[in-house]
Amino acid sequence: MDKGKLLAVARGDEPADLVLRGGRVVNVFSGEIETAAIAIVDGLIAGVGDDYTGREVIDLAGAFVAPGLIDAHVHIESSLCIPAQFAQAVVPHGVTTVVTDPHEIANVAGMDGLRFMAQSSAGLPLSVVVMASSCVPATHMETSGATLTATELAQLLAEGTVYGLAEVMNFPGVVNGDPTVLAKLAAFADRPCDGHAPALTGKQLNAYVASGIGSEHECTTVAEAREKLARGLYILVREATNAHNLHALLPMIDAHNDRRICFCTDDRIPSDLIDQGTIDYMVREAIRFGIPPITALRMATLNTTEWFGLHDRGAIAPGRRADLLVCASLEELRPRLVFAGGRLVAEDGVMCDAALAPAVALPPAVSATVNVRWDAVDLRIPAIGRTVRVIGSLPNQLVTEARILPATVEAGYAVADPARDVLKMAVIERHTGSGAQGLGFIQGIGLRRGAMAGTVAHDHHNLVVIGADDASMLTAARAVVAMGGGLAVAEGDVVHASLPLPVAGLMSDRPIAEVRASYDALIAAAQALGSPLHDPFMAMSFMALEVIPTLKLTDQGLVDVSQFAIVPLFVD
Amino acid sequence: MDKGKLLAVARGDEPADLVLRGGRVVNVFSGEIETAAIAIVDGLIAGVGDDYTGREVIDLAGAFVAPGLIDAHVHIESSLCIPAQFAQAVVPHGVTTVVTDPHEIANVAGMDGLRFMAQSSAGLPLSVVVMASSCVPATHMETSGATLTATELAQLLAEGTVYGLAEVMNFPGVVNGDPTVLAKLAAFADRPCDGHAPALTGKQLNAYVASGIGSEHECTTVAEAREKLARGLYILVREATNAHNLHALLPMIDAHNDRRICFCTDDRIPSDLIDQGTIDYMVREAIRFGIPPITALRMATLNTTEWFGLHDRGAIAPGRRADLLVCASLEELRPRLVFAGGRLVAEDGVMCDAALAPAVALPPAVSATVNVRWDAVDLRIPAIGRTVRVIGSLPNQLVTEARILPATVEAGYAVADPARDVLKMAVIERHTGSGAQGLGFIQGIGLRRGAMAGTVAHDHHNLVVIGADDASMLTAARAVVAMGGGLAVAEGDVVHASLPLPVAGLMSDRPIAEVRASYDALIAAAQALGSPLHDPFMAMSFMALEVIPTLKLTDQGLVDVSQFAIVPLFVD
Repeated sequence: MDKGKLLAVARGDEPADLVLRGGRVVNVFSGEIETAAIAIVDGLIAGVGDDYTGREVIDLAGAFVAPGLIDAHVHIESSLCIPAQFAQAVVPHGVTTVVTDPHEIANVAGMDGLRFMAQSSAGLPLSVVVMASSCVPATHMETSGATLTATELAQLLAEGTVYGLAEVMNFPGVVNGDPTVLAKLAAFADRPCDGHAPALTGKQLNAYVASGIGSEHECTTVAEAREKLARGLYILVREATNAHNLHALLPMIDAHNDRRICFCTDDRIPSDLIDQGTIDYMVREAIRFGIPPITALRMATLNTTEWFGLHDRGAIAPGRRADLLVCASLEELRPRLVFAGGRLVAEDGVMCDAALAPAVALPPAVSATVNVRWDAVDLRIPAIGRTVRVIGSLPNQLVTEARILPATVEAGYAVADPARDVLKMAVIERHTGSGAQGLGFIQGIGLRRGAMAGTVAHDHHNLVVIGADDASMLTAARAVVAMGGGLAVAEGDVVHASLPLPVAGLMSDRPIAEVRASYDALIAAAQALGSPLHDPFMAMSFMALEVIPTLKLTDQGLVDVSQFAIVPLFVD
Repeated sequence: MDKGKLLAVARGDEPADLVLRGGRVVNVFSGEIETAAIAIVDGLIAGVGDDYTGREVIDLAGAFVAPGLIDAHVHIESSLCIPAQFAQAVVPHGVTTVVTDPHEIANVAGMDGLRFMAQSSAGLPLSVVVMASSCVPATHMETSGATLTATELAQLLAEGTVYGLAEVMNFPGVVNGDPTVLAKLAAFADRPCDGHAPALTGKQLNAYVASGIGSEHECTTVAEAREKLARGLYILVREATNAHNLHALLPMIDAHNDRRICFCTDDRIPSDLIDQGTIDYMVREAIRFGIPPITALRMATLNTTEWFGLHDRGAIAPGRRADLLVCASLEELRPRLVFAGGRLVAEDGVMCDAALAPAVALPPAVSATVNVRWDAVDLRIPAIGRTVRVIGSLPNQLVTEARILPATVEAGYAVADPARDVLKMAVIERHTGSGAQGLGFIQGIGLRRGAMAGTVAHDHHNLVVIGADDASMLTAARAVVAMGGGLAVAEGDVVHASLPLPVAGLMSDRPIAEVRASYDALIAAAQALGSPLHDPFMAMSFMALEVIPTLKLTDQGLVDVSQFAIVPLFVD
């Protein structure tokens, strides 16, 4: 960037690249709206004032201009799309920066995965700030594709791949001073370190904060959020597909604490991104609740830049990035125009052609991640007892129940019994081709026949399969592996629906609208097989997550999370 | 720092070093007051909550506890004391951190001067954050003791001596993109860069802000401060001995912009520091004006840490420095106890013995800075014309008038004429012993006889002398040089009063109360010789400052600031 040129345009001695004239400019510093021209050069705002000349001039005719919105914490992988396609969904909603934790791909492809996310985000109309995933793997009770040590995270920081430390989910490790956790925090001592400590309170919370972690996005109640804010954490209010905290937390916001509150989406599936929106939706809802519009916008802009120290954006001011949205109404906040780095990138909810990203070449580290040793796969469960532990999946919850039920036995094998809503579940190791597999039973998914399978299975993303019979399960599993990862629904030897996710088995590189349609078709297929769930694939994706109670299944076997130990399938 | 121990104390598993119990804790994050215990270990706050055990417990019996106050911008040299003695004055007022621009000593001793300020601040009960003086020398129309280039400033940053870039006073250089100025800003691109741009507005202001400078402490009106804040500058409201901006700016503060406003003192002489206070005085006055107490305290704590990125302090929260003040009333804000780094350092306005700093060894670079080539000193002014340019000093202003008056001639020499309040002024180069001297005349100081001299003369701090006759001037000047720098009042061959300032000719290493008494005696002596001014030494110290209009005198001669050029003494 030529600072001399920037200053010359600011002084009015040289014409700007672009002048936005006649807009009502949202000033997040003063809290006021001012009618002013915005002069832009080389992607930066040079000046804000009553007169500038430019090679291009756009008359905003009284429309509002606000800083581009910022998502303070999002796992892009949850959109099932690579960053370029994720951007297609969020930029038209006015989001110009996201802070992302590439935690999912990190568990599959480690440092190469993080580097892929950073490299494939370069040059997008969306600024992607990559944080270093801090808890890879989550535990040692499942096989992951990678392990990230403090040394490796420090290397990612030194090479400029990452900006800070992503959510430190191992909160017991933090609170108790686990040296491996403290080493990671020490490596990021001068950088923003995001937190994740659901329901932590009192002295335990003091310890968590004293460690140097500075934010929290897991609050679910006003009391929890108020305590965490008072102890010094920025509160990143979350509105995810599978965790709706916004409306519960809006009542906490007041004029004394609002500067310490930001907005984030954490995890959103394509249909939510496309239909409902993202941070723009949160701003709209906050205003509808009664938060003053500029206060709501600050939570989506300036506050977030202050938490992360991203002082090059988040406000319409000289020297900052020309990331802007133009809209007719702040209350409605439907961006008519979106500018990223001074470039018009979306108009009336549609990306501009010029903003479309080039195709991304996939390195082998992320394109060849599904390695199943088929000769070791055997879904049969010899009936060595009479009662089994069964995962009790609950609607819209990540927490499961640990149930103990009589096994249904056929020809010496314990089998699925759809009549009792007992399905078989398998988690097949898919990173190293070790042949490890865990087998168990699950209630609450509701398939009456057929099977579903996928390589999206938090946090380690092995191949998970749930079905009413072994043949359908194998068909679904083989379909997923044949796609190099993805999701599939099968019945017998027929695949009813599938969505290839060739990028680490987590993401598609196809347009997000196409991904969304395929995903809708998958859900419909699973529902046609009997599942009553709104989204059986999302439910399945958390059934291997052995850090959330109570009973989960990994490739190492059944995990009793309350004991933090592998337990046998058969009770007696 | 042992983080494991910090966490153990936070958890309650180990006793704290100190627990402050029963205080009403000012929470600058939530804007609330909470009754809570504060657990402190190794100088840090481990936890805030309702119960902690400690090796030492102090019951605060309902007193308020606030974060230690922060002065966002101060030239410690203006206290005429080294940091250890400056600390003696400000710490009992609750100030535990100052951000300092050692601009005065930098002009005398360059990098060694900055290093001395940093080194002599180590281990004090006051945290001194040293900024890199950006404009040394101020101009090339006076001889300075040093020049600081971008390369040297970058070296000071790399070695950890400085934290950011101090006030960039060369605002025309910034606005017009002077490469030497931009090089300094580039060297501090990721660090806080303080501004100084009096009355800059409109496009010029846009350019100044676009350069990357982020604060301003020169605002004198609400309109000026509002515009600068709206463009993105933090406003550091100043209440100095010689610049009173607080009451003029208080009306600008509202709930929408207060997070972008901080407090600073810039320059304060010992009597103001001791009698009136410092940042505590500003907080008191703000509250008296009607600013809510916690808002006023935020401007003296959290806001300042946010501007500078000093996230290890500024709030009472786990992991932050235990810099605290205890007082019976927020409105009164008279600290009963002051803690710095967890240590009780002042009680009821008096430093604790244990907090007294050890004597500082003075390196030659700062202890031998007065080098006058006496054989070149000749105060006589041959009368080569009939009228002379005369500096018109105005009460309580740095701006002077350029007057043209008939010369008083005796025996072929133009001489002082106290009857017309025309005194002779000399600026004698004292850094390099070059023998350079500038001679001229001045009105407005008011001595009827005798002379005053000193090595405190902004910005380059040569030896300045003002007097009614040459003999008195030489006596005063020789007395100052004999002290290795300082201030003196003389009459004939008698020195009436003097204050040695052996540290760079700017600072004493004696107790500040002693310095204050000597300074009062100097003023009294100058007043006894006829000066009607409240502080003739302060007035004199700005008469060589050739960056402030209109007519000034340096060792190179008379400077017409509006022409930015040396002009002859005689007009015709």
